[in-house]
Order: sequence, then structure tokens, then C-alpha cells
Amino acid sequence: MKDGKTIEELERIFHPRGVAIVGASNNNGNLGKFFLDGFIQQGFDKDNLYVVHPGEQEVIGVKAYPTAQDIPGDVDLAVVFSPRETVPKVVRDCSMKGIKGVVICTSGFGEKDSEGIRLEQEIVEISRRNGTRLIGPNCVGIYCPSSNLVNFAGVMPKESGPVGMFSHSGSLSVMFPVAAATQGIYFSKAVSCGNVCDLNESDLLEYFGQDPETDIIIAYMEGVVEGRRFYRLARQVSKVKPILLWKGGTSDVGSRAASSHTGALTGSAIVWEAVFKQTGMIKVDSAEEMLDYLQAFYFLPLPRGNRVAIVSGMGGMGVAIADACIEYGLEIAQLSQYTRKRLDEVVPQMGTCTDNPVDLGMLSTFNSQLYVDTIEALGKDEGVDMLLITRGSWKSDYMEKVLAVLGEVEKPIVFVTTPARKRVMEEPLPMKGVAFYTDGRRAALVLSKMVAYNRFRSDN
Amino acid sequence: MKDGKTIEELERIFHPRGVAIVGASNNNGNLGKFFLDGFIQQGFDKDNLYVVHPGEQEVIGVKAYPTAQDIPGDVDLAVVFSPRETVPKVVRDCSMKGIKGVVICTSGFGEKDSEGIRLEQEIVEISRRNGTRLIGPNCVGIYCPSSNLVNFAGVMPKESGPVGMFSHSGSLSVMFPVAAATQGIYFSKAVSCGNVCDLNESDLLEYFGQDPETDIIIAYMEGVVEGRRFYRLARQVSKVKPILLWKGGTSDVGSRAASSHTGALTGSAIVWEAVFKQTGMIKVDSAEEMLDYLQAFYFLPLPRGNRVAIVSGMGGMGVAIADACIEYGLEIAQLSQYTRKRLDEVVPQMGTCTDNPVDLGMLSTFNSQLYVDTIEALGKDEGVDMLLITRGSWKSDYMEKVLAVLGEVEKPIVFVTTPARKRVMEEPLPMKGVAFYTDGRRAALVLSKMVAYNRFRSDN
Repeated sequence: MKDGKTIEELERIFHPRGVAIVGASNNNGNLGKFFLDGFIQQGFDKDNLYVVHPGEQEVIGVKAYPTAQDIPGDVDLAVVFSPRETVPKVVRDCSMKGIKGVVICTSGFGEKDSEGIRLEQEIVEISRRNGTRLIGPNCVGIYCPSSNLVNFAGVMPKESGPVGMFSHSGSLSVMFPVAAATQGIYFSKAVSCGNVCDLNESDLLEYFGQDPETDIIIAYMEGVVEGRRFYRLARQVSKVKPILLWKGGTSDVGSRAASSHTGALTGSAIVWEAVFKQTGMIKVDSAEEMLDYLQAFYFLPLPRGNRVAIVSGMGGMGVAIADACIEYGLEIAQLSQYTRKRLDEVVPQMGTCTDNPVDLGMLSTFNSQLYVDTIEALGKDEGVDMLLITRGSWKSDYMEKVLAVLGEVEKPIVFVTTPARKRVMEEPLPMKGVAFYTDGRRAALVLSKMVAYNRFRSDN
Repeated sequence: MKDGKTIEELERIFHPRGVAIVGASNNNGNLGKFFLDGFIQQGFDKDNLYVVHPGEQEVIGVKAYPTAQDIPGDVDLAVVFSPRETVPKVVRDCSMKGIKGVVICTSGFGEKDSEGIRLEQEIVEISRRNGTRLIGPNCVGIYCPSSNLVNFAGVMPKESGPVGMFSHSGSLSVMFPVAAATQGIYFSKAVSCGNVCDLNESDLLEYFGQDPETDIIIAYMEGVVEGRRFYRLARQVSKVKPILLWKGGTSDVGSRAASSHTGALTGSAIVWEAVFKQTGMIKVDSAEEMLDYLQAFYFLPLPRGNRVAIVSGMGGMGVAIADACIEYGLEIAQLSQYTRKRLDEVVPQMGTCTDNPVDLGMLSTFNSQLYVDTIEALGKDEGVDMLLITRGSWKSDYMEKVLAVLGEVEKPIVFVTTPARKRVMEEPLPMKGVAFYTDGRRAALVLSKMVAYNRFRSDN
């Protein structure tokens, strides 16, 4: 299979002329009906939606046909929910109809038992013979807001954005777009690829690597089908777009669980450590980390170096954040003579420190201008690559004033919002040049990942 | 100095008959006035409040006296904000008046310059000579809600609770009580001990160790004055009360910053690793971790062992959380035959897993009862020491139903709330037996700390 061809096939899957929902029925709790409803809610043109079901005439206002071959209009994508034993016939019917992409949501295949393994082999053979491409089985389908494809009704954002995702976990392919939207981060596509019996991690990585709608790639993976190809692609794509990879199943038990989850062979933790190092992919270890990193790569410019300036209104916090920065390989920036002089002018004498980490003292809580002047001075210092600020001021004009000077800084700026401050006032959403975290240590880790990625890009 | 005497002295400081605010004036932005106002807002009896200032008659309705010796009523505590050069005389005056506790908030002493070091030595000598005890200098004072002492006006909770804190960082001694209150966690006392020129970490640890109002001790420390005594006390107190210690200044730069912050000698990271291991103190590495651990020790029973049962409605999340649990030294519990049988009865077949980690499948989002039955079955399993549940159900009756069965479980139960779920519904506050975290990895870390602490208590 040529790569260019696969990209073209995926392009058509993401932007289908018509979609058939196979196995949707009027039964209560029917999953196909739930997804059909999702497509309608998401704004997919009802005239290009079809139900395939042997016993239904119509499901929530959409006409049903006994088989895919009976559908009159053009269909490029089928999403299958019918029982596993019917799936080989469904794939055959779809091929006959000329449907190029079949997403099999039905589970109970390779991840389940020997009969499931046999059935999975059978559908792969049918699809190969007919040039039909499969996603899944055991997945929740495709989310693509620009063409109104949806994987979970009612909660997926309608806005498109530059994040492309593929995931062995269906629920994470739902969870991340929903969670990220609360920070104003949107997705181009999210693909739940389940047992990857045909289209796999490498195909999707290659697609996103060249997709003009995608600037950042995130993934949850338990194993990898074509290890070498994935490695080569990851190294190549990382040079252009950051890849945030959460690798599950690295422990023995995790690995066993992954095998019952998606039938994946997970690979050892040591091998994966090396893969991360050599490919420039960014290693993610939890859902929260994924959202942390995503926020940074979405909103911040890459830092030019590893020198951080720390500003706090709490000396203890500044000390502890400096510890964390150093632990994660950042350098505490040496401030220039000019900057020190400027800080000595603006920062009051008592209970403060104008060396880096800069401590503005507790009364800075009531002094927005002090933060503004400090950020401005540090932003101009050529020896500072990025700023990490524990937000002190509780004045309502604070963020407005700070944001006014940020345009001139053009370095990553990260604010740490303490839970105490959050109690007093609402934070703004992250925005170009500025990200927000609730913990200094997490912020330091995020910045270290950006530094490492920038270094990979410079070296390769 | 006998220990029993120090405890008695601290007891009087925490419950003073009268308080003198030294250096409060009617000037705009005067820190003493701000604190005086804080005492009044907190509910401290105005009749037992006094201002000491050479040039004022009255400050916000509180009568002022030229020196402490001029105050007519009984005073056990003075809180000092006057300029550093006046502090030796202030301490002398307080001693003459018979005030046994002087909290020096003024900064610019040992942490600042040679003149500051000299002044600090002078006030220590004066206090020793007169039997007056000092807290600070360079601190923000004492918070003790049961006697209406307050360190920062307007934000401190009025409720008392079982958490005792001491901190080299003044702002953290404010931040933690404010932040913890949002989770229903309250403090007995929080002491900002600044440069610890007299009463030090060991004195406070010993006090909290025997304080009937305190069940959990938390601390932010940059260094330690009496290392051996602190070590001995920590080991002893840990057997009865958990000590959550955030140690700042462990890196070179952090250490330098700490020295300019509170003049502390911080000690090497390696030494501190050993201290944590041998004393049973719980190592905290960030503000968020402190709040995470505090929630657990506040609301959860200690786990009897390290065997965890994981429940998810997202297979990928379950796999990744199992990885994190193992990384942190927990064991994935082997479920009993009986539990497996029970789970096979209640959990639907498709896209689920009844082995641990238990995966209830994506549709569990709409099935509260499924979670309830699963939690009940796992709770009864003798081979399960604690439960870690990724909350799946978005039904409004979910938590109510779950909480109804939790009473019978009597094991630590931790829920992981995904940001996506948070968007759909409000979480309840943590409560007896139940804690909430926003990340599975963080939850696994928390449980591992509880297991380690329980092991220390059993072994010692």
C-alpha cells in the first residue's frame, strides 16, 4: 500500500459525501441510534445520512435500508454497530456499495477471545480483497468537526482547531476534545482506532503530519503495529509538528490490561524511553499532563533557550519553583545589570528580592503595576528565554494590565494560579503567548518539555 | 530551655488575653493597620486589642499607646511591624510589660545584610535575658481561628479544624488555609516562623505533636535550626500524626534564594531524602501535592495494605492508571473468585473488562447503578485495600447512589474526575472516606504515600 494512497483514502473518510450508520435501530439504548442522533446534533446533513438495518424502516427520521448496497446515494463512510458475527457480511456489503471507509465500533474481536480473533482476520481479508479501508474494530469512531463527524453525542465541540488526535482508547478520544475546549483549544480530527486491524498508528501519524488542518498531534497508544515505520515517521513529523504521546500499558499489569482492552502488544518501558529520546516525541504520563502540554504548545511560542525568570509574590513559592525548574533541567536566568537596576527601581525594599527568583513580597497582592513593571523588565532581558510567574495580585485590573505589556515580550509566559487566588477571582482563558497552570512544579515541567522539543528541532 | 515550658509558652501565645499591634498607624498602606483590621474582622475582642505607636492616638477605633509599657490591660502577645532599627527597643518594652510572646513581622534582618544580622542578634539577646519568646522576624504572624488570631485580613477562614502548620514562607502559611478551605479542610493553627531567631521548627513540631487540636501537621521548610532535635521529634510525632513536609531550597539556586528569603541553611537533597525515609515524614514536592495529600490524610482511613482496585469507564484510562499505580509501588489487587463472579453478573459483556483494572465501558456514563454495584463488590473483597475510580457516570443521581454504599466499605476511596466530566457537572466536596482528584496519576501517588505512611506506623 503506497502512503500517498492511504492519505487520500483517509481524506475521503474525514470528508465523506454520505455516511451509513449500520446497526442503528429504534431499540432503547441502541448505540447506533445514539451515534445517529449525534451526527444530526452535530449538524451533519440529514439527507446524506442513511441507516442500515434489516428490520427497521426509519430511525429518528432517517430512512433505513436492509443492506448498504440498497442505499441510493453516494456513501464514503460506514459506521458499524451491528453484532460481531454480522460484521463480515457488513464489510462485504459496504465494499460492494463502493464505500471506501468502514469504521467498526463493535467490540468483541481480537481483544476478546479466539472467535473474535478469527472474525477480525476474516473482515481484514474481505477488506483487503476489495480495497476497503477499516478503522477499529472496538472503537468509538471519528470526530471531525469541519465535516460534522462525531463520536459521542451531545458533548463534542463544533469548533475546529489545529489539534489532531489518534487514540487506542475511544473514551480518551472523546475526553480530550471536550476537556481541551474548556481552555479554548480545539481539534481538527480525533480518531479512535481501537484494535487497528487495518488503518493503524503509522497511517494516522503520516496523515496528520501532512494535514494542513493539523499543527499539533496528540495520541494515546498502547502498542504499535508497524514499529519501524512509526519510529521513522515520528522522527520526521516531530521536526515540523510536536507529537504529544501518552503511552499506556508500560507496566506488566498495564500491559495485560491493554491486551484485554485493545489486544495490543505494548513493548517495554525501556524501549519506549529510547524512542521518545530519538524521535523528539514529547512523553506524556497522565491525562492532566496531556492537557498541560497541549495548552503550552497551542498558545506559547517555543523558548529559544532554557533560561527561566521566576516571579513570585511569595518567597517560599519562588524558592520551591526554582528547585523544580532545576530538577527538570531549566536554568535560572542570570539577570542583566540593566534589569537588576530597573527592578531595584520598581520593587519596594522590604521583604522582597530583585535577584532571580524575583520575590515581589506579599503586599504585591494589592499592586498590579508592580507585576506589570517586573514582567516588562524581565521580558526585555536578552538573557531570559521564558517567564514563570506565580500570580500574586488580586486586583481586578491585574490581568488586563499584564496582558497589555505581553504583546512586546514574545517569549513563553506561564502563570501559576494558586487555589487561594482562584477562590478570589476567575482566571482568563489561556491565549496567544500566555498559559495558566495551577501548580509551579507542573509549569516547570511543561516549560522543560518545550525546551527539549525546541532543542530536538534545532539539532535535527 | 525545657520542652514543657516551651509548649506552655506557645499555648499562651496562641490564646493571648490581649494583643498589641506595634507599629500600626493611620498611614495609607500601613501594614500594621492592615493586620489590626484583620484581627477585628476575624472577631478578636476589640477591648483586648491595643496599638503601640509613638505618634498615634487611635487607629481604626483602637486606642494607641506610645510604648507597650503604657498599655493598661493584660497582654500576652505583641505583633510587631515597626521599622527594623526600632525593634530592639520594642522587644525590651514588651519584656518590661510582661508580654511573653513577640511576633516580629518586620523584615530586613538576617536575610538582608550585616546590619540586619547584628540587629537580629541584639533582639535575641534581649529576649533571652528577659524570658520573652520570639517568632520571626520576617514573617506574617500567627493564624489561630479558635482564638481569632489572624495573619492576613479578609481571606482567612473562621472555622477551626485539625490541621496544624508552620512555615518559613509567610505567604504559604496564608495560601494553604485559604486553599484548603475550598475543600472543607480547616486549620487549628498556622505559624509563619520567618527567620526562626528564637522559637523554631522543632519547638513548633513538638507543640503540634502534643496539641489536642491538631491531628495532621503540614510544613513548608527551607532549613532547620536544630537538626538533630527536629529529626528525633519528627520520628516520634510521625508515629501518631502524619507530617506532610514541603522542603524548599533543595537545589543550588533554590538554596541561594532561600538564603535571601529567610536566611536559611537548607541542607542537601540527599540528606533530606534519608531524613524522610527514616522519620516517616511524607515528602511533598509542590503546593498542589500538599493539597492532594492533605485531602487524603484528612478524609480517608489509612489503607491496610497496598492492593488497589481500579474502576474505569474508559479502558485507556484504566490501563494508564494501572501503570502509574505500579510505578508508585502499589499492587493491582487480585480479585477473589466471588468478586469476579459478582462483576460478571452486573457488568455488561461488550467493550468491558471484569478483571482488575475493571473497565465498565463507555456506556457506563449513563448507568449509575453499574458503578454502585461494582464499588460495592470491590469494597467487600478482602484482597482489596483501596479503590481508585475514574468517574464515568454523568447521571445526576450518581454520587448520591455511590455515597449510599460507601459507608459499608471502610477503605480509602479515591475518585478521579476528568476535566470533561467536570464540564458536565459539579463534584461534591471530599468527605469522610472519599477524596477527589483531577488526575489518575496524582491519585495513585497520593495512595502510595498513604501506604508508605501506614507501613512506617506499623513498623515503628
